[in-house]
Amino acid sequence: MKIIIAPDSFKGSLSSEGAAEAIKAGILRAMPEIETILIPIADGGEGTVDSLVQATHGQKITLQVQGPLQEEVTAMYGVLGDGVTCVIEMASASGLMLVPAEGQNPLMATTYGTGQLIKHALDQGYRSFILSLGGSATNDGGSGMLQALGLRLLDEEGREIGAGGQALTHLRHIDATNWDERIVESTFTIASDVTNPFIGPQGASHVFGPQKGATPEMVEVLDKALTHWADQMEAHTGIAVHHLPGAGAAGGLGGAFQAFFPSSTKRGIDVVIENTKLTEHLKHAQLVFTGEGRTDAQTASGKAPMGIAQAAAKLGVPVIVLSGSVGQGIEKLHEYGITSIYSIVNGPMTLQEAMSRTSELLTQKAEQVMRTFLAGSKKEE
Amino acid sequence: MKIIIAPDSFKGSLSSEGAAEAIKAGILRAMPEIETILIPIADGGEGTVDSLVQATHGQKITLQVQGPLQEEVTAMYGVLGDGVTCVIEMASASGLMLVPAEGQNPLMATTYGTGQLIKHALDQGYRSFILSLGGSATNDGGSGMLQALGLRLLDEEGREIGAGGQALTHLRHIDATNWDERIVESTFTIASDVTNPFIGPQGASHVFGPQKGATPEMVEVLDKALTHWADQMEAHTGIAVHHLPGAGAAGGLGGAFQAFFPSSTKRGIDVVIENTKLTEHLKHAQLVFTGEGRTDAQTASGKAPMGIAQAAAKLGVPVIVLSGSVGQGIEKLHEYGITSIYSIVNGPMTLQEAMSRTSELLTQKAEQVMRTFLAGSKKEE
Repeated sequence: MKIIIAPDSFKGSLSSEGAAEAIKAGILRAMPEIETILIPIADGGEGTVDSLVQATHGQKITLQVQGPLQEEVTAMYGVLGDGVTCVIEMASASGLMLVPAEGQNPLMATTYGTGQLIKHALDQGYRSFILSLGGSATNDGGSGMLQALGLRLLDEEGREIGAGGQALTHLRHIDATNWDERIVESTFTIASDVTNPFIGPQGASHVFGPQKGATPEMVEVLDKALTHWADQMEAHTGIAVHHLPGAGAAGGLGGAFQAFFPSSTKRGIDVVIENTKLTEHLKHAQLVFTGEGRTDAQTASGKAPMGIAQAAAKLGVPVIVLSGSVGQGIEKLHEYGITSIYSIVNGPMTLQEAMSRTSELLTQKAEQVMRTFLAGSKKEE
Repeated sequence: MKIIIAPDSFKGSLSSEGAAEAIKAGILRAMPEIETILIPIADGGEGTVDSLVQATHGQKITLQVQGPLQEEVTAMYGVLGDGVTCVIEMASASGLMLVPAEGQNPLMATTYGTGQLIKHALDQGYRSFILSLGGSATNDGGSGMLQALGLRLLDEEGREIGAGGQALTHLRHIDATNWDERIVESTFTIASDVTNPFIGPQGASHVFGPQKGATPEMVEVLDKALTHWADQMEAHTGIAVHHLPGAGAAGGLGGAFQAFFPSSTKRGIDVVIENTKLTEHLKHAQLVFTGEGRTDAQTASGKAPMGIAQAAAKLGVPVIVLSGSVGQGIEKLHEYGITSIYSIVNGPMTLQEAMSRTSELLTQKAEQVMRTFLAGSKKEE
């Protein structure tokens, strides 16, 4: 019997690799001779590089780039096992995690470092990219990334406008003389579940700005700045990103890709599933274990277990979800191919206790579920 | 497919009948056409009458008797579906539940009412008895029960010594002239998991007295009184119950049965299993669900799920335990035949929340487990 173990991370308590190992330990307690295949997974956001590099036996490349507030940070990207595809998490260079809460400044934060990662990979000869857009500290409409790749953004006196979303207010001219031509020779797959437009009440500034420290006044400034930036991009490229779905991802970084890059956007979990060869492995599996920190009706909207269930359902492979906490509305998840959903907690306890014991509880639950599954498989009809 | 649903009660939140119905609802959600057989169970203590009467389609008989403190109480006993076996919970007439905490008086509490229940059943013509000894308020060495059945306990002036354990200090003579002769024509099966002796540091007074409100001083008085009572019983019957295992059950009621009744003691859960015909039903079942409030290493010591697992293991039927809380030491339960053990909680929560949602959580968990079992049974090897 072959079992796939493909959990997401349990955010705040256990990495997807740690979760996979914990589940494996429980399965082997129930039946030591079972073959397990570990595919720690991500939903296309945080953890995507780790997941894809590990699943494909690729490598990580580390370099110094500009952080969100132009400080130097150590960022990384991955090269998949195929040796040709790079996977970049924008958050590695331009993420909210890199900024202490008291230092957040969405008016100034820049995606310049993300552009530097792409440039570094282009310099190494790579032309195939997967971009994960989750976790940004920025609201600059991707302008910093474009600047890092040679686009000059100039004010009315012909000077560089500088970094951050607010500076876009002063933009009068886009100079593409030094624009990196290798970009048009490349393909960019954008892994993003955000469908918000670039501007307006559902746009990047209004919906995601506050998470990055924007006050209501800053939100107004930034939405106005991005509107001006969208007008300028349209004048330059002919592409109006203002109301395009997904253009609002990562503080408008999605819009910059749509206007300037040969790119296509896919649901994050689908990008991960495709590149981990999960479907290939599923063909020979009798059961899949996945997991995440919390499972509820939201899980159906493109979270990792859902993507795995859909892939597994096509092949008739049952899927078990082990979750820190199981909320309301899970009934419909069964319709999408999830066989059973279990909380890992084994009795009344606090969230804090559950998070501190995630690994142990995962092992215990995986063992119990595996024992039930095996009992079912032994049953004579 | 036929499934047995045989939970114990979830003490403080759900009766065993309620638990069985909740589990059934979940199983039917997973597969509406499954045949279920509900056998709400008890471990031989509280709930034994309900469990056996329901499982055998018997009846309950209600009557007024003396309570633990000689107040009038409404008590009941059961007649099984066979029409010949009576099942009596001593707690129904002489239980701690009948006494408010501030009224507890282990020096005075009497098992007289239990004797009245037996006498009533004898009057109806019954000669086969199951006695459940759990939950007593008494520490009278069973003297009250014997008094109700005609034994006269006299002081040095030939007067009745009165009720309760303390009064035994004054006992000088046992007069069996009026002893109910129908008792020797009867059989008494004592359902009890208590193995404590009648007296001494592990005896009824020291170990169970404090739960019934005995202060350290009262414990000394009662242990001395029971020692004297054991001496007197030995002089009268030739049976020394002082150190007999189980004689300390129910404040020494166990010892009175050993000395004066044609009785045998069995593990409570075994009495229940035997009389619910669980084993007969198991022969045609593919799976058993049981459950209890808390499962841990103690479950192995004769609690309901353990007895069911042992009966099921003999027939190779898998057993699922659904429990409010799963503690340490469950590994060895698997060795005894329990397939899987699940807590019903579905995320971090307080004990209070878990107890107020027991029925709903049982249904949800039973559905998930059933889905896993069915997925296993559909798997092609």
